[in-house]
Parts: sequence; C-alpha cells; structure tokens
Amino acid sequence: MRATTLHGLKDIRFTEVADPVIEQPTDAIVKVIASCICGSDLWNYRGDNDITPGMTMGHESLGVVEEVGSSVSSFRKGDTVIVPFCHCDNTCPNCTFGAQSACVHLGFTVSGQGEYARVTQADGTLYRIDADPAPELLPSLLSLSDVMATGWHAAVAAGVRPGGTAVVVGDGAVGLCGVIAASMMGAEKVVAMSRYADRQKLATAFGATHVVETRGEEGEAEVLELTDGVGADAVLECVGTDQAMRTAFAVARPGSTVGIVGVPHGVQLPVHRMFRKNVGLAGGMAPVRRYLDDLLPLVLDGRINPGLVFDKTLPLAAVAEGYQAMDERTAIKVFLQP
Amino acid sequence: MRATTLHGLKDIRFTEVADPVIEQPTDAIVKVIASCICGSDLWNYRGDNDITPGMTMGHESLGVVEEVGSSVSSFRKGDTVIVPFCHCDNTCPNCTFGAQSACVHLGFTVSGQGEYARVTQADGTLYRIDADPAPELLPSLLSLSDVMATGWHAAVAAGVRPGGTAVVVGDGAVGLCGVIAASMMGAEKVVAMSRYADRQKLATAFGATHVVETRGEEGEAEVLELTDGVGADAVLECVGTDQAMRTAFAVARPGSTVGIVGVPHGVQLPVHRMFRKNVGLAGGMAPVRRYLDDLLPLVLDGRINPGLVFDKTLPLAAVAEGYQAMDERTAIKVFLQP
Repeated sequence: MRATTLHGLKDIRFTEVADPVIEQPTDAIVKVIASCICGSDLWNYRGDNDITPGMTMGHESLGVVEEVGSSVSSFRKGDTVIVPFCHCDNTCPNCTFGAQSACVHLGFTVSGQGEYARVTQADGTLYRIDADPAPELLPSLLSLSDVMATGWHAAVAAGVRPGGTAVVVGDGAVGLCGVIAASMMGAEKVVAMSRYADRQKLATAFGATHVVETRGEEGEAEVLELTDGVGADAVLECVGTDQAMRTAFAVARPGSTVGIVGVPHGVQLPVHRMFRKNVGLAGGMAPVRRYLDDLLPLVLDGRINPGLVFDKTLPLAAVAEGYQAMDERTAIKVFLQP
Repeated sequence: MRATTLHGLKDIRFTEVADPVIEQPTDAIVKVIASCICGSDLWNYRGDNDITPGMTMGHESLGVVEEVGSSVSSFRKGDTVIVPFCHCDNTCPNCTFGAQSACVHLGFTVSGQGEYARVTQADGTLYRIDADPAPELLPSLLSLSDVMATGWHAAVAAGVRPGGTAVVVGDGAVGLCGVIAASMMGAEKVVAMSRYADRQKLATAFGATHVVETRGEEGEAEVLELTDGVGADAVLECVGTDQAMRTAFAVARPGSTVGIVGVPHGVQLPVHRMFRKNVGLAGGMAPVRRYLDDLLPLVLDGRINPGLVFDKTLPLAAVAEGYQAMDERTAIKVFLQP
C-alpha cells in the first residue's frame, strides 16, 4: 500500500510500504477513508522525539473494515468504523475503570495516514457508524478518533461543571475541542487562551465567552481578572509544554483541578504550589473509546461540529504539504482524503 | 508565657516568651489545654527547613478562649474550642470552594506547644465543643486540629469509595489516620504500608485489612499482588518524600488518584507515568475546618478513636523529650499536657 512515512527531520514522504496484515486473531484491517495530521505528529517531524527512519505515520482515522481476525465477532468486512487512536479490549480492569488508554492490551494505530491500518483488539476498539456517512460529516466523525475525544477528556479530567468557569490553555485543535467540551458541559465562562485570529474566531464559534491573547504572567493576570481574582474552577491544559503547564497551574483556583491531555515535554510539575493551593492534576492520554457513546450523538445531531478544526484539506499523496502547513501554523489541522 | 522554642539543630527548649496578644480585631487568644508534636515539626528539628532561632513551635491545639478581638462575634472567653492549624475566615471564595487551607486570610497557629496561642480569623477558624470534655476524649479531639483531618483529606482527595481498595503510604500518625478515613469511607480492602510492629498493630485496629512491610519495588510488587495485579483504586500518600511518592504512583491503578498530604520534600512528580496511566494527583495542605462538622460526631460517638495515635504523654515542660522520642521513632506521636 501507499502510506505516509517519516525519514528524518521534516522529511515526510508518501511511499510504498508493506500492507498491514492480521497478526493476531483479535486484529482487523481497516481501509482508511479519512485521516489527518495531529499536533503530536509534529514532535516526531521536528526531531523532538527519537524516530525510526521510514516509520509509517498517523493515528487518527475513519475507515471501512477490510478483514477481521478469526476471533473478531462484532465487526465484519464492509462496516464503517471510527478507529480510536488507542486500541483497547474494553473489557480489562483498566478499561472497565474508564482507563481504556491504559488497557492491558493497549495498541495504537500506526499507519492512519496510509491506505490501510491494522487495528488490534478490534472488538473492543472499533465503533460502528452508518455506512456511507454524509461527506460533510466526515471531518467531525474523524475527530472522534482522537482530537475531539481528547478535548473532552481534558474537560472531564478538569471537572468542568455547569455554571462554572473553565480556562483552556492551548489553541491547537485539541484546545479548540476542549472549548467545545467545556461549553457543552455547561461552563458559564469559557476562557480560550489564543494568540491567533483564526483560532480565536473558531474558539468563539465553539463557545468561548472570552479570549485572552497574552501569554506568560501577563496572560495569567488577565485570566485572574476575568475570574474575580480567584482563578478558574477548571483548567484544561492542551499543549504539554512546561510554560503551558505553569500557566495552567497559575490560573487554577485553590481546590480545582488541571486536566492535562498534551503529551508532556520537558515538564516539571509545580508540586509545592499544587500542595499549598490544593490544585490537583488529572488526565493523560485520552481513553477515546469511553466517550464515543456520548460524543457520536452530539455529532450526528449537529450539536457539536468539531470538524471545523480542519481548515485545510489535502489528498493523502500531498501529506508532506500538510505537515509543513501545520509546522508553520498556516493550518490548524489538516484533513487527508485517500 | 512559657512555650516550646527551637534554637538550632535538635535544640528544643521550654522557655519564657512574650505572651501572644490580639493584633487584629478578628483575632482570639486561646489558652492551650492540649497540644502535641507533628511529624512536620521534625523537618525543622532536624534542620531540613530554615529556622529562626528562638521561634515558637506547635500548630496543633485544643484550647479555651481567653480573649477575643473586637470584631469576633461567635466566640467568647471560656469557650472550649478545636483550633485548626490553618486559620481561615471560612467565607472567602477559596473557603466556600472547600479550600480553607488556601483562605485569602490564611494564618497558622505558631505557639501551639505553649501556654497560649493567637488565632487569626477566629470566627471562621475555631470550632466550639462542650466545655470540660472527658479527659479520655482529649487526644481524639486534639487530633481534629490537624492529624485526623489531614488523614481524612488524603482519603477525600484520593477519592476513596465504598467497596474499593485503598493503599496508605506512610505509617506515621497521618497515615494511621488515613487508614481510619479509608475504612470509614467504606473501602473494602485497606492496605497499610508499615515496617513497624506497633504501627502495624494500630493500623489493623484502625481498619487496615492488609499490612505490607516491605518498601520500594518489593513493597510495590506486594501491593500489586494484593490488588489483582491492577493497583489500588485510591492511594493516600502521607509522607512527602520522593520515595513515598514514587511508591504511591507505582501502586495506583490507571485512572485513579493519589491523594497527597505529606509536605513535599525533594519530590519530582512522575509526570510521564501519570500521563500514560491517567493517574491523577489531588490534595495538599488539609482544609481542616471543612471537615469538622463530619469528624466531631464520629469522635463523640466513639466511631473513630484517632487519639490512639498518641502513644506517649508528657508535660509540656518535657517537650524536648517528646521531640527526641519522635525523632528516634520510639513514639508515634507525643501528646502534651499543660
């Protein structure tokens, strides 16, 4: 098949690789009908993580089941499915405790930006949707494989409550989905911290009631002013850098929780401040499968439209252009069509 | 008055100092009728914190109101009171959010191991109890000024639930009170990590269903075995050292929360593990006042007897002997009488 591969610093190619095959009886092979580029792919692209040259890329995808292993009983060839980026059996003690992203049989989609992808633990992982979804729904449905579910997880972890205040640190696609989540969960004041006009506009469309453009101490002071000098009831940290984390803890009111979903890079948690102020931390890699029963109806009813985070669409063969656009921030998130 | 003072490394004296006086109209002066030594006093005693030579010591006390400031309306001379170690107005946004230990008017008892103590924000801080409590109740009542409320906070922060498993890291007085709390909150399996026979015995009396004697990786493996290889539903970290924190996160099941109440010393939070396993952290300095409505009846009804953590009683004048005993671990916690 043809798939996106990474060969070195900012060296993305669309090349011929071996087809994924059923390796375990619990596997399925899915033909990808929509995929995209994730902010976390940029860590590899920019050389911030160790990579294996030639590795396939992409963990977000929507697909049609092509083949299933002998023990897969809930899906068959032809089913249209959401493919959560983290694969889980959905029956182990971690899954039943709501931590599907720490399933004892955890797996990941590794060729989502390709023609086919192998899904481990297919019965537990996949989520069936109607065949031939309307094309305009594809972006939002695709977002359920990761980005929307991740923003939702940040809000759940932060304990967003009706009538409260929520601050979203980070205006990438995950942060924007965090705004959707905080708004849907009934936060009365949703503050989006964002420097870019296009993202601010989207945040407002998604339910942000306030936008804070400044960063660091200046931004923190502005958020405190918006929250009566007290700080926010819930903070969603959707970046993963040390500065974002510091800001998150600086604007979280005593007794609140910072919900984290950005993969931590170079982060030192401010344990003394956390202790003194009783500010907790929750979250982590999103247990996507856990939220699909809640999120799919919201998409199908049109109550949320997270697909709007895709502001650039490219054919899969032009994936390198997509990486460049996201790296240079000329696109928020790039939608890829086969 | 005479009070406990610290003059240098392990140099505790009982000396004459200036009487505390009403400094603000919201203050009260309390005559101390019972006090004790806290594990956190040992950080100062052992030279692990910077100290001011001659500083008075003690933040846990039970007392009788001696004098109140002009704006104190809920208490008067002669009232017998629990004095939460952290003083709060109990009306500010942080207090009403349940974070009384981050009150905007936060204060602390600083001469609890003395004849008198100044209490700031007396109306919000103090908690009246019956005059002349039975002598045998004094230790448990005193424990509500800090140690029992702190153990309770660890269990609340960790989210102990009926029928679940709870692990308590630390067998000091706070950890032992954490065992009481986890047990009262209905945890079915309460694992106390303790190396000392006397503390193990007390933990068992307090409701621990299992004791793990080993430490580090060995102890962690033992806890995992006791929790079906999954880890605990709730972990109470009652020490504050890096090793204790590591153990806490190692035995916390994915999706659970570590409740911390030990003042962190040299702690590096394992942010990558927390992220990967979705293990959260909550807690901090205990909002003592918040829990007294719940805890006092439990003590008065005899449903909990946290006073048993005091295994040595001394006259205040012999306080130096008490510090030595706790430093050498020949006493769990020392009760001081005027």
